[in-house]
Amino acid sequence: MVKKTAVQMDIFKEIPQTGENIKENPVSEKRDERQVKESRKQTQDTAHILAQKQREISISEFFLKNRHLLGFDNPSKALLTTVKEAVDNSLDACEEAGILPEIIIVIRQIAENRFSVSVEDNGPGIVKNQIPKIFGKLLYGSKFHTLKQARGQQGIGISAAGMYAQLTTGKPIRILSKIRSQQESHQFEIQIDARKNAPVVVREDTIIWSNNDVLKEHGTKVEMEIEANYKKGSHSVDGYIFQTALANPHATIIYYPPEGEFVKYERVSNELPVESKPIKPHPYGVELGIFIKMIHETKAKTLRQFFTSEFSRVSPRIAQQIAESVNLNADQRISSLSPSQIELLYQSIPKIKIMAPPSNCLSPIGDQLIISALKRQFKADLYYAVTRPPTVYRGNPFLIEAGIAYGGELPSEEPVEIMRFANRVPLLYQQSACAMTKAIVSTSWRSYNLQQPKGSLPVGPMVIFIHIASAWVPFTSESKEAVAHYPEILKEIRLALMECGRQVSIHISRTRRFMDQEKKKSYIEKYIPHIGEALREILELNKAEEERVNNTLRETLEKSRTKIVLKEAD
Amino acid sequence: MVKKTAVQMDIFKEIPQTGENIKENPVSEKRDERQVKESRKQTQDTAHILAQKQREISISEFFLKNRHLLGFDNPSKALLTTVKEAVDNSLDACEEAGILPEIIIVIRQIAENRFSVSVEDNGPGIVKNQIPKIFGKLLYGSKFHTLKQARGQQGIGISAAGMYAQLTTGKPIRILSKIRSQQESHQFEIQIDARKNAPVVVREDTIIWSNNDVLKEHGTKVEMEIEANYKKGSHSVDGYIFQTALANPHATIIYYPPEGEFVKYERVSNELPVESKPIKPHPYGVELGIFIKMIHETKAKTLRQFFTSEFSRVSPRIAQQIAESVNLNADQRISSLSPSQIELLYQSIPKIKIMAPPSNCLSPIGDQLIISALKRQFKADLYYAVTRPPTVYRGNPFLIEAGIAYGGELPSEEPVEIMRFANRVPLLYQQSACAMTKAIVSTSWRSYNLQQPKGSLPVGPMVIFIHIASAWVPFTSESKEAVAHYPEILKEIRLALMECGRQVSIHISRTRRFMDQEKKKSYIEKYIPHIGEALREILELNKAEEERVNNTLRETLEKSRTKIVLKEAD
Repeated sequence: MVKKTAVQMDIFKEIPQTGENIKENPVSEKRDERQVKESRKQTQDTAHILAQKQREISISEFFLKNRHLLGFDNPSKALLTTVKEAVDNSLDACEEAGILPEIIIVIRQIAENRFSVSVEDNGPGIVKNQIPKIFGKLLYGSKFHTLKQARGQQGIGISAAGMYAQLTTGKPIRILSKIRSQQESHQFEIQIDARKNAPVVVREDTIIWSNNDVLKEHGTKVEMEIEANYKKGSHSVDGYIFQTALANPHATIIYYPPEGEFVKYERVSNELPVESKPIKPHPYGVELGIFIKMIHETKAKTLRQFFTSEFSRVSPRIAQQIAESVNLNADQRISSLSPSQIELLYQSIPKIKIMAPPSNCLSPIGDQLIISALKRQFKADLYYAVTRPPTVYRGNPFLIEAGIAYGGELPSEEPVEIMRFANRVPLLYQQSACAMTKAIVSTSWRSYNLQQPKGSLPVGPMVIFIHIASAWVPFTSESKEAVAHYPEILKEIRLALMECGRQVSIHISRTRRFMDQEKKKSYIEKYIPHIGEALREILELNKAEEERVNNTLRETLEKSRTKIVLKEAD
Repeated sequence: MVKKTAVQMDIFKEIPQTGENIKENPVSEKRDERQVKESRKQTQDTAHILAQKQREISISEFFLKNRHLLGFDNPSKALLTTVKEAVDNSLDACEEAGILPEIIIVIRQIAENRFSVSVEDNGPGIVKNQIPKIFGKLLYGSKFHTLKQARGQQGIGISAAGMYAQLTTGKPIRILSKIRSQQESHQFEIQIDARKNAPVVVREDTIIWSNNDVLKEHGTKVEMEIEANYKKGSHSVDGYIFQTALANPHATIIYYPPEGEFVKYERVSNELPVESKPIKPHPYGVELGIFIKMIHETKAKTLRQFFTSEFSRVSPRIAQQIAESVNLNADQRISSLSPSQIELLYQSIPKIKIMAPPSNCLSPIGDQLIISALKRQFKADLYYAVTRPPTVYRGNPFLIEAGIAYGGELPSEEPVEIMRFANRVPLLYQQSACAMTKAIVSTSWRSYNLQQPKGSLPVGPMVIFIHIASAWVPFTSESKEAVAHYPEILKEIRLALMECGRQVSIHISRTRRFMDQEKKKSYIEKYIPHIGEALREILELNKAEEERVNNTLRETLEKSRTKIVLKEAD
């Protein structure tokens, strides 16, 4: 591939002609002589000095120095992140194995700023020789190379928690795991060699299973000692576990906080979420560089084979359409394509109508469960939820669900409360940086009868619940706290919010009309006895007849009011 | 290190006693039989199936999928990021070599969504065999392992831009570089093998230098073809280059935009910024895990040698104090320390008074240059800037500079405008996620006579300029667009803002008093002629005498007004 030639440099001749000015510009004359001399002396060496300093940086070293990128900014957030990474893994593993999850979280305080965290699950367990890498190497995992909805996706989280433990307490991460097909379980104590991004097994035990009550027949338990801080409140571990239970009604979660009673969230559904299937990339979402790579690496022989086998939603007929649109034959051999033909093929894809990617890689919570979740937590007058149809950003299928609770006991003078979820994981931090927040702020709530200061969240007695389910959620950082601002995602969230907004609007108008009519009614009602009394005197009715007249008047009033309400509601 | 034993598991016996409840809870009975059976069948295999899927993820693959983390979210941001990464490198290289930078940026439109970007500098150039790795491998660079202020720090940026070019246009990144000590220059065309995170040299030429006008005697030129979108406005390349010139008055920058005339920002200062020196870590900022690692890896023999050679600001006397505080001798051999002694030593450090780290690793812009920069851009009534003394977060020295322009022609009904810089690099995106914004919002501007809606930016005719200079700026993402919320950094920014706020407050009060007095004065002045007229009639003065009386009255009024102002200003 490499051509070595000595040529006069002409390849850069396309520099603009005005560039001639640059040479004439007297900038260098401005420098004082001494400085120029000095700079010359230094320049002689700098390129070589710099060359000596150039070094590879391991991903562990990088994240050790940038641990805030992974959610370990401060001790209270570190506690939350540690629990979150372990619980995410447990829930993913259980679902992958078709097991209804049962998770036990134990947090104990050891010293002023030191806590031990243990998370245990009834998942499938981990094969012995994989344990060190999964817990002692960043960027190692099963989910990255698959397009499938999962909580974890990067292979960073749990190893990062272990690295944080090691950084702050010097203690290794401890793993106990058992798979069903083996009698014994394995226990490891693992540290990370940051320079190599590789696990160091500090201790390894094989433990004969003795029908012990701690682990089930299979499962994994992870334990760490970390510098941390335990706080209550909306950003707390308690809040995270509560919201996790909300978004995962099929899981039983038992939580021993460092202080106070243990909490048990019983599963409310015995059905596992619809299993999400891995899918192939969709042609609309593939970028030119990736397309070229796929062409080079495919085992397919012909264009037709290539398109139908490497992509989702490409039938032989569609493959033919793509090929023909650039005057190629679908039977053309892949190996004979020129670079310009490849680029032409790529550019023709958006012009061919191709079905949206299959949505069975997605597993929504569902509007009914969202409404139940909201009802469990908030006393409101109106609950509503919507699950949008799946759609695509950069070829990745995703869907948005939104729910609202309105009125009732919710505070009416505050900005609305937001609950954000991605693949059923609650997002507690970086609310202001999240696409969900941006979508809420940029929705015009005034048209739905809500107050909204310019560029801010709407104000009113409302909670907004938003969930994105995707084979690949684009987060704004590795700590996965906020969703990036992709226009397709923003649009879908807005559409979901607008549907909720309309319901709120109808509810508010109805309530207002109801209140108005109630006011009128009570006003008229006040006079009914007087009218009755007047009629009795005029018509010389007795007490019983007067009562009947009053009742008739009340009934008539009630009927006409209902009619108006029904008419207005149409 | 690895002990292999088969034991009954007792190490987990510390599970809380209430844990007994868990076993008794009848959760599993709730599952319906069919489901349990199914799950069993699946479980048998899942651990092994998962094991087969476990794979290493290369850092290039990771960022390819998460390119928004690096600032390549969309075509217009990608254009900005590409220019920024190249310019940051050029400025860093020039300063490292003691060269006054001269940078030529050329952006040309090739097709509707396709642009070529070229950035050329007069820096020291790059040694030939380093070129492929620097431009074709993520996490490779000279700045990561040094504590020193620089624009680049991660060794990701320029390779990521190249990867983006490859992804969107399939074209390699092209580099031309010459170092002073060699006659020939080298030209490379490089792609990245994402799976290996390694450079692929597509083409390599040696070019004999022919006194060509394009590159100087030494320098580097980087050229890329990318999918992009050229926009004007505050988030644009134009804006970035303008702000870069503001914060780097020692650089000459020539910019050929894709449309319109070229722009030349002449340097306004012939002095290079104070050279920032690399420093050693400060004891206060080192974490236990790092401390343990340093103890294990040091070449020092004794505690005294260890502390004085591996840290900054530790004199032999301080080393002795640390050792003695835990009843150790400073001559104690490092190799003889027990783990618990190491932890005790570590814990004693915060109790010993140690000088703040040296600030010569920092290179502030300076209050005077900030004021000049603000004056050049904004027509205001008041300019003020402050450079805070250096301080420390997690052992990393940093300093904050803040400047304000107030009044004049600035819009008075809008939230204030914010200009953010980190190590002289303008930050254009993610304003709401930045510590600088948080510090502004959480400062009480009402006490400085400014309006401020709750939880929002202050409103008024003001621009706020904030610069953080640090040996390691903690960004919220790899794209380096916002500063993370470290409490020490927030505090320093607030202190700088408060100093600016006080000046604004004084200015506003003074203006108000001045206005009040002007009003009073004009009110009294209105009556002076009438008084003069009355006096003339009573005292029978002539026209000239009346005029004298009027003048005397005016002078007296002026004097007393000045006296009041001076008195109030005390």
